[in-house]
Amino acid sequence: MTTFRTNLARTAAFVLIAASWAAPGRAQEPLPSWNDTAPRKAIVAFVDRVTKQGSPDFVPPAERIATFDNDGTLWAEQPLYFQLLFAIDRIKALASQHPEWKDKEPYASLLKGDVKAALAGGEHAIFAIMTATHAGMTTDEFEKIVRDWLDTARHPTTGRPFTEMVYQPMLELLGYLRSNGFKTFIASGGGVEFMRVFAEKVYGIPPEQVIGSSGTQQFEMRDGKPVLVKLAMVDFVDDKADKPVAIQRIIGRRPIAAFGNSDGDLQMLQWTCSAPGTRFCLYVHHTDAGREWAYDRQSSLGRLDKGLDAAAAGDWTVVDMKQEWKTIFPVRP
Amino acid sequence: MTTFRTNLARTAAFVLIAASWAAPGRAQEPLPSWNDTAPRKAIVAFVDRVTKQGSPDFVPPAERIATFDNDGTLWAEQPLYFQLLFAIDRIKALASQHPEWKDKEPYASLLKGDVKAALAGGEHAIFAIMTATHAGMTTDEFEKIVRDWLDTARHPTTGRPFTEMVYQPMLELLGYLRSNGFKTFIASGGGVEFMRVFAEKVYGIPPEQVIGSSGTQQFEMRDGKPVLVKLAMVDFVDDKADKPVAIQRIIGRRPIAAFGNSDGDLQMLQWTCSAPGTRFCLYVHHTDAGREWAYDRQSSLGRLDKGLDAAAAGDWTVVDMKQEWKTIFPVRP
Repeated sequence: MTTFRTNLARTAAFVLIAASWAAPGRAQEPLPSWNDTAPRKAIVAFVDRVTKQGSPDFVPPAERIATFDNDGTLWAEQPLYFQLLFAIDRIKALASQHPEWKDKEPYASLLKGDVKAALAGGEHAIFAIMTATHAGMTTDEFEKIVRDWLDTARHPTTGRPFTEMVYQPMLELLGYLRSNGFKTFIASGGGVEFMRVFAEKVYGIPPEQVIGSSGTQQFEMRDGKPVLVKLAMVDFVDDKADKPVAIQRIIGRRPIAAFGNSDGDLQMLQWTCSAPGTRFCLYVHHTDAGREWAYDRQSSLGRLDKGLDAAAAGDWTVVDMKQEWKTIFPVRP
Repeated sequence: MTTFRTNLARTAAFVLIAASWAAPGRAQEPLPSWNDTAPRKAIVAFVDRVTKQGSPDFVPPAERIATFDNDGTLWAEQPLYFQLLFAIDRIKALASQHPEWKDKEPYASLLKGDVKAALAGGEHAIFAIMTATHAGMTTDEFEKIVRDWLDTARHPTTGRPFTEMVYQPMLELLGYLRSNGFKTFIASGGGVEFMRVFAEKVYGIPPEQVIGSSGTQQFEMRDGKPVLVKLAMVDFVDDKADKPVAIQRIIGRRPIAAFGNSDGDLQMLQWTCSAPGTRFCLYVHHTDAGREWAYDRQSSLGRLDKGLDAAAAGDWTVVDMKQEWKTIFPVRP
């Protein structure tokens, strides 16, 4: 636990640094990891417009809702969604309790280290992996499992803790928006119970501002105490046309700014930026094969195709990571 | 709209009055509409314990989550849930577009003014009434319908606007908790889209802190603009054992205080008060047939039976409305 807390504390320190950079009244300019080109100027101009008292574009603080996708928008998503890497690690950890997995797909391939073969089973395989690792325990037990994993697991190519695979420019953006009275939410296809374990310390986003996919839960009494048990049933997949649905159901107010990186975020951005009034929509475009990864229209993971067309047609901001971001990941203090 | 806004402004003024009474550092005592007996003392003692820096019971502000049932806890629920009265009014308003309702239950009885006969159909009848009035429109359209109704409708026995059928002592309690760093949520069986129309102005609770029952919604493009359409399908009923489930899914953090008035709130209170640490659970007990209504163990609506036993066993606070509350409804300025 110590290492995990140390890591979190370190990452939290980055956030604080970003927040102090972004705090109003300081000499520092906001968004220091952003080059001072069109995307940064567009962000600052938008924030200035909606926060200026007496301006026709002024938005009261209670309505300053900003929603962020997580995978590929706030942290990396290559070579696989990090939550899927977690699930694969759990399959390995649980294998000794499931001797039958040796001969059963997708587990058999995973245990041999062949992720590609395991995932060839498509959605069925992913559902099997997820339910084997995300159900059958209480919410408290699951939180501890994720916490322990984040403490020890390392990214397969960078060797960093996953909580340090977050984007420094986006941490600064979160802090900048909050210092201007925005309420920042995550609206991600990732599991809500998974993201909440780190979202508050890493992003400064409390659990009640994290929206994600969820499994069905059941209230039970065990030894006279209530618990919530995670069942092997999908309750809600927070992706594509269901992102605005979840935003409406949980926030109940249309965002005035939305941030994504893939076609899975398209409807969230449409819902946000088609409303009357001053709105801001931004796509992070993965263009940096050297410092991060480069992928868009042809990628099977995080595909950004229709979204790029919609951004051009709708005059949304597209961030070319390679061009616009001075740093990608937080620099270790 | 003017009248509605006037009513809301008036009710908002009550809230502000309550908040100013409760503000720290003022000479006024908090909770002025509460007699200074055991329930009021228990609330104040709990708040003092969890907010005192350095105390072993201290709870950081981010974890000061309080959840409130709505019907019968924050506003009245007799002679019928107000949302059901809204639905009945809508059936009457829509009848000319549905000539077939004249001969079809439960509509036919409702149109003849016989609510009891209409509701004799049980859950099936209620589902028919709710889907006929809560589905088939966009979320924006529904919000306007509710707003217009709240503007003009009056309670059948008191003649008050429904937004003035809220409990003054509970408005003071909401303000008192918030002035002590609590985040106040509604967790109600009522429809989330219905409650949000008035919760912010009347209770000071923003839409993203309202949890309730919901119908399924669908994202659609109409004339090139996205809308969310309310479908005739139940998505989630926020009652009984599903209240803790919704609290976990949406807030993601266990409340440290919970407030209800019926057996439908029992699991929420169990979930809240069985956790380690200092917790506070309170039942509003409807004992005042003169100023409000008196009902508990035998009532078909808002039954409080198992809850009373659990409160006694668990040392929860039970508020005898007749004894403890100096006023029930806000006094019109």
